[in-house]
Amino acid sequence: MRVILIGAAGTIGSKVLQALTGRHEVITAGRTSGDFRVNMSRPESIEAFFHQAGKFDAVVSAAGDARFGELDKLTYDDYLFSLTNKLMGQVNLVRIGQHFISDNGSFTLTSGYLAQEPIPGSSAISMVNAGLDGFVRAAALELTRGIRVNVVSPIWVKETLEAMGRDSAPGMAAAQVARAYVASVEGTMSGAVLDVLKIS
Amino acid sequence: MRVILIGAAGTIGSKVLQALTGRHEVITAGRTSGDFRVNMSRPESIEAFFHQAGKFDAVVSAAGDARFGELDKLTYDDYLFSLTNKLMGQVNLVRIGQHFISDNGSFTLTSGYLAQEPIPGSSAISMVNAGLDGFVRAAALELTRGIRVNVVSPIWVKETLEAMGRDSAPGMAAAQVARAYVASVEGTMSGAVLDVLKIS
Repeated sequence: MRVILIGAAGTIGSKVLQALTGRHEVITAGRTSGDFRVNMSRPESIEAFFHQAGKFDAVVSAAGDARFGELDKLTYDDYLFSLTNKLMGQVNLVRIGQHFISDNGSFTLTSGYLAQEPIPGSSAISMVNAGLDGFVRAAALELTRGIRVNVVSPIWVKETLEAMGRDSAPGMAAAQVARAYVASVEGTMSGAVLDVLKIS
Repeated sequence: MRVILIGAAGTIGSKVLQALTGRHEVITAGRTSGDFRVNMSRPESIEAFFHQAGKFDAVVSAAGDARFGELDKLTYDDYLFSLTNKLMGQVNLVRIGQHFISDNGSFTLTSGYLAQEPIPGSSAISMVNAGLDGFVRAAALELTRGIRVNVVSPIWVKETLEAMGRDSAPGMAAAQVARAYVASVEGTMSGAVLDVLKIS
């Protein structure tokens, strides 16, 4: 398959790239690196990217920012940033990409466990992640031509916890999380919120 | 208690008003009706409203619009409208209202069952409803002074189904849904997504 991977430079994305390489032709895209430039927060940028990308069978997104911060410190703009970037950026990949992707193609997005298991400071991220899960369940009902959409919901990744100077023991190795993305691309499920604790 | 009810003119809101009246002092607010004017899509309007409203012990929101439409017809603006209105409107009630509400006060928001059980055409609404559920679970962890937040997740209401010319049999009477709001205002739970099928 010809697979577009967005966010290949990230902690999880780099392991998804490794996991897909050799099995598929992988095209990378990102805001500042990769084979193509795409700005997830701008629908025009996503549309322009799909026009340039040629034919493809799968889109995998390990991209999108959302703001962490205390409930009484996060501003309205922090929420809007999170909504237009991690949430609508990935929604737009599906909304716009459905008109470009091959028959029986798939979209695999990224949300996160904070959707169901929040921590102090995660109100914007929990909102965005849960919103992504809700969108994917719904969008799967309407995609045509055999096109599928799933979302991977990772727990904290060991590499991220280490970079934050925190105990990495409760985390999962990014390479293990990456298996959920491969399962979505190569499997037959649609509308699924892939729980990395169950897949890997 | 002194309870602010936003959306008291709506199908569910009018039954919530009935259920709260007599038990509490109810102040109504809405875009075009009620004791006070408030535009949910504008944070400045919400802030101005709280400045005018005086002391209060609870905020109940049965307000907020989101767009229904096919996945390949909904525009980016339809999603943004849904996010800034039903989602961020209610998030802003909590974000801004936390600085005005009395100790041990409560916020009760409205999402909906489409979050978990989508139908064709509900991608924006499912996203918004799920996002609200995620926000409430997270925000509850950080509210101080005993302040609580919950969200009621209604199924289709009989009155709405009838107004749409559809079979109302699978729906729940709005007056029955209203009980979940009363349970949130008068109870002690926080961070709960109130399932109307379990509460009523």
